[in-house]
Amino acid sequence: MSIRIGILGYGNLGRGVECAVKHNPDLELVAVFTRRDPASVKILTDTAKVYHVDEAEKMKDKIDVLILCGGSATDLPVQTPKYAQWFNVVDSFDTHARIPEHFANVDKAASESNHVGIISVGWDPGMFSLNRMYANAILTNGKDYTFWGKGVSQGHSDAIRRIDGVKDGKQYTIPVEAALEAVRSGQNPELTTRQKHIRECFVVAEEGADLARIEQEIKTMPNYFDEYDTTVHFISEEELKRDHSGIPHGGFVIRTGKTGWNDENSHVIEYSLKLDSNPEFTSSVIAAYARAAYRMNQEGQKGCKTVFDVAPAYLSALDGAELRKHLL
Amino acid sequence: MSIRIGILGYGNLGRGVECAVKHNPDLELVAVFTRRDPASVKILTDTAKVYHVDEAEKMKDKIDVLILCGGSATDLPVQTPKYAQWFNVVDSFDTHARIPEHFANVDKAASESNHVGIISVGWDPGMFSLNRMYANAILTNGKDYTFWGKGVSQGHSDAIRRIDGVKDGKQYTIPVEAALEAVRSGQNPELTTRQKHIRECFVVAEEGADLARIEQEIKTMPNYFDEYDTTVHFISEEELKRDHSGIPHGGFVIRTGKTGWNDENSHVIEYSLKLDSNPEFTSSVIAAYARAAYRMNQEGQKGCKTVFDVAPAYLSALDGAELRKHLL
Repeated sequence: MSIRIGILGYGNLGRGVECAVKHNPDLELVAVFTRRDPASVKILTDTAKVYHVDEAEKMKDKIDVLILCGGSATDLPVQTPKYAQWFNVVDSFDTHARIPEHFANVDKAASESNHVGIISVGWDPGMFSLNRMYANAILTNGKDYTFWGKGVSQGHSDAIRRIDGVKDGKQYTIPVEAALEAVRSGQNPELTTRQKHIRECFVVAEEGADLARIEQEIKTMPNYFDEYDTTVHFISEEELKRDHSGIPHGGFVIRTGKTGWNDENSHVIEYSLKLDSNPEFTSSVIAAYARAAYRMNQEGQKGCKTVFDVAPAYLSALDGAELRKHLL
Repeated sequence: MSIRIGILGYGNLGRGVECAVKHNPDLELVAVFTRRDPASVKILTDTAKVYHVDEAEKMKDKIDVLILCGGSATDLPVQTPKYAQWFNVVDSFDTHARIPEHFANVDKAASESNHVGIISVGWDPGMFSLNRMYANAILTNGKDYTFWGKGVSQGHSDAIRRIDGVKDGKQYTIPVEAALEAVRSGQNPELTTRQKHIRECFVVAEEGADLARIEQEIKTMPNYFDEYDTTVHFISEEELKRDHSGIPHGGFVIRTGKTGWNDENSHVIEYSLKLDSNPEFTSSVIAAYARAAYRMNQEGQKGCKTVFDVAPAYLSALDGAELRKHLL
C-alpha cells in the first residue's frame, strides 16, 4: 500500500513535491489543497484532485502525510501547528532564528494529536544542517564554514525589483573561490562577509531610467548588498528571460578540524550541492522525510522532529537488510 | 557523569580512539584491554589502566561502551558478538560482503543481553555509506560514484612488500581527476576500474635487486594492480621514512540525479574527506557512535545497529534544543 500524500500550497515548491512523489513509487499523491479557486489550479497528476484548503480537515483519514508548501514568514508558523492536529506534516520552515519557537508550537500540536511533524526540511535548513551536525560530532575540535551558491537569491532579487526604475531583476550569490580554497587547505581563515560571497545582479531597467542611480542604489542597499562586492549588469527583458529564468542554487558545508593527542593531524569534511532547481531539490528531500514521518508515526512516535531526530533508514524505500547489503 | 569507555586492542585504531576520547569531554577512558602483556603496553591516558583481555568480563559494570579495535578478517567476527554479551559495543567491521552475517551474529548476542552493538562505523563503511544512503533517498533517479584517495592502501602496500627483493614499500590510491570532473558535470559516465583510480608505489628495493623485474611484478599483480595504471618509484629507505610515513586517506561520494516532471533538472550531491590520519578520523567517528550506543541503550534500545539506524542527534554532545538553535 502506498503512503498517501497531500500537498498544501501549489507554487514552485508544491509542484516540486508533486514531481518528487512521481519519482517515489511507494508514495501516492492524493490531494492538492489551495487557497485559490480549485477549478483554476491545474496539476500534473491525473489521479490526484485539487481541493480548497478549507476541505483539508475532512480528508484527514484519506491522507497519511500532508506536506506544507507555504512560506516561512506568515504561512508555516500558522499552518504547521494547525494541520498537525489532523495529519502527519512536513514543512520546510527556514527562518533559522524562529526555529525554536516553531518547534515548540508544532511539538505541542503534534503531541496532542499523536502525529509526527517534521519541520525545516530541505537543504538549508536540512541537508546542510545534517552535515554540519555530523561533522561537528566527529571533529569536535574544528571550525565550520558554509558557502551558498552559485544560485539565485529570491530575497535579493525581490529587493532589486523594488527599486524605482527597475522593471525586473535577478540576483546570484556566488562563493569566492579563493575563500573556498583557503578553507579547504585547513588554514582556518577568519572570513568577512565580503570575503566569502560576491553578488551579481542582472537588471532590466525601465525605459529612460537613470542606470547609474539604480546601480548605486543596489550597491549601497543596507543588509542586502552594502557588505558585499556587487556587480550590476543591465540587460534586456528578452535576455533575462532567456538566460536567467532558472532557479539554480547550491553551496558548500566544510568543517576542518584536528585530531591526535597533540592535535597534530588535520582533516577536511566537505559536503556540496549543485542544483539546477532549488525548489525541486528541496521537494525531493521533503518527499523522503514524508516517508519517514509516516513510518515513525506508524511505530507510535509523535511530536515535532527535525532532520537531527530522524534515523537515516526511515528515509529510504529499501528495508534494513537491503540497505546494509547495498549501501553500507 | 561521563560515559565510561573501554578499548579492546591497542594498535593504530585503539590509539586513535584514545585520542578521540580526549577530544570529547563527556567520554572517559577507563580501560584498555590487550592480548599482549599489559605491562608492555604504554598508553597516553594517565587515568586509565591497561588490562589483559581476559579481564574484560569482570569489568562489565565499570564500562558503558567497549570499542573493539581489532581487524575485520579474524578478530571482529568473533569479538563483537562475544563482548556484546557484557557491553554495549562499537566496531569498524569493514568487510562489505560479510556485513549481513556479522550483523545477524551481533544482533543475536546484543538482543539477548539487552545491549546495543553498532557495527561498521568509520568512514567507509560509515560516513560514506550514510552519504550514499541520504543521496539515494533524495535523488531516487540517479547514479552513485565512490572514489577513494589520495591515500595509503594498507592491503596494496602489504602486497608490494611480499615481492622478492622488496625491503619496504607504500602504495597510494589516487582518484583520476578527469573522471571526477566527468561525474560532477552530470554526464553519468560509465567508468572502468582503470578510469577511476591510479596506483602509485614507492618501493625500497634490497641491494642488488632486479628493479625492472620488481616493477613488472607489481604492475601485473592480479586483483591488486593489473587493472590499474600503476607507477613505481624506487626510493631510499630514508626517503620512505621521511616522505611516506603518514597514513593519509580520503575520497569522494558523488550522486548525480534528475528531478522534474520530465527529468529536466540535474543535481549533484558530493561528499568528500581529506584526512591526514585514516585511523584517527575513523576513531573520531567511532567515538561519536559510542555516545550514541550508550544513549540508545539508556533509552531501552537493544540489538545490532548500523549508521543507518542511528538518529543523528544521538551523536552530538549537545542536546536537542542546542542543536536546533545552533546547527539547524
